[in-house]
Amino acid sequence: MNIVLLEPDQCASADVWQISQPRQLQHLGQHLQLNVGDTLKVGIREGQRYLTEVVAISEECIRVRPVQTEAVPAKLPVHLILALPRPKVLRRIMMDAVTLGVERISLIHSYRVDKSYWQTPFLQQLNDYVTLGLEQAGDTIAPEIQLYKRFKPFVEDVLPTLISAEQPAYVAHPYAEQPMPYAIQHSCSLIVGPEGGFIPYEVDLLIKNGCQAMSLGNRILRTETAVSNILGRLFV
Amino acid sequence: MNIVLLEPDQCASADVWQISQPRQLQHLGQHLQLNVGDTLKVGIREGQRYLTEVVAISEECIRVRPVQTEAVPAKLPVHLILALPRPKVLRRIMMDAVTLGVERISLIHSYRVDKSYWQTPFLQQLNDYVTLGLEQAGDTIAPEIQLYKRFKPFVEDVLPTLISAEQPAYVAHPYAEQPMPYAIQHSCSLIVGPEGGFIPYEVDLLIKNGCQAMSLGNRILRTETAVSNILGRLFV
Repeated sequence: MNIVLLEPDQCASADVWQISQPRQLQHLGQHLQLNVGDTLKVGIREGQRYLTEVVAISEECIRVRPVQTEAVPAKLPVHLILALPRPKVLRRIMMDAVTLGVERISLIHSYRVDKSYWQTPFLQQLNDYVTLGLEQAGDTIAPEIQLYKRFKPFVEDVLPTLISAEQPAYVAHPYAEQPMPYAIQHSCSLIVGPEGGFIPYEVDLLIKNGCQAMSLGNRILRTETAVSNILGRLFV
Repeated sequence: MNIVLLEPDQCASADVWQISQPRQLQHLGQHLQLNVGDTLKVGIREGQRYLTEVVAISEECIRVRPVQTEAVPAKLPVHLILALPRPKVLRRIMMDAVTLGVERISLIHSYRVDKSYWQTPFLQQLNDYVTLGLEQAGDTIAPEIQLYKRFKPFVEDVLPTLISAEQPAYVAHPYAEQPMPYAIQHSCSLIVGPEGGFIPYEVDLLIKNGCQAMSLGNRILRTETAVSNILGRLFV
């Protein structure tokens, strides 16, 4: 947690803001020994980021006063399209994508996505994972998130509207011939399959609808490792 | 698990090899419905990788016969020097580093590494994490791993012997001015600090001993995310 993220209504029309969420208080208690007068980085969700000064500390709340605004880090111009990961991985991969600055995230179905994953209670907690990712990165702006529970309608009807000459869509695919590009200067969609990969029918359908299959070399990465690795390569 | 990794003594002087480790049998049972006659990728630790044919299946063991050799993926020419992560993260970060093909890994102490981390039983399991990483990547060659429980002697006595004009050492550091390089064509050491980062004294000592501090932009990444992200950028 590199900033404390507050909801806008927590800061409306007040000179002094209250940090009272138990998770945030616990983290601050564990990792920072705050005293009155110390500075603390605070962001307002969908708003600005501030350097604040601690003006009061109690068991239930820390009060801070904004001192000056700080720059919110820029997003990566990428739409991450991800086969819904299994619940245990979902939290980390969403946090990471948000931390790395992905602008938009779509979670899609695929043959190797177990149907039960769509029922997991973790999907109700996406907003919490986004908060954790933003607090890690020092960002305040949540990415747009969409869920597509059917693969074919997404690929045939939605995906083509996202692709243009200036905005290609890359599918990470172990058996592609072309290597994933690097240091690109334009926006793109990045499509990452499930554990075990897309099935050939799915790869074919993606290509038929305008995607470019790109290889990552001959090491097969876990999806969460792949997302961070590819983003590091695409946007340097 | 994209190959099954066997110990050399499991394959010595035999035409037929036995897969009998419970973890491997369980994984194969869950993810592949193998039948006699199917092919299976098998690697011999520190040796070659093979396409094999399944010749017998029982509850306690799967027998395979090597059919042809396959290429082992090349390593990345990088020595990853990592502040010892907390136990929960250690497994994933080691697995990832191995999967990504890191040639050599050193785990070092640092001010923000809790001393108790050096007592964790997980450190006894590094070899298992390496196996998991190799099986994920389809690799057979384990990286060299070393532990340095004292920061200063490592930085002053060991690190300078690793650095040369052809083999620089980069420290990932949020407040550096120069950006981390990308698409490099030479080998290097990559130094990644603990959660919370190196303290200024440590960064200064690293620089004084020949390291170059390199920034990753103004988003602060978790260490495991950073490792995969930086390697994706350095070696494209």
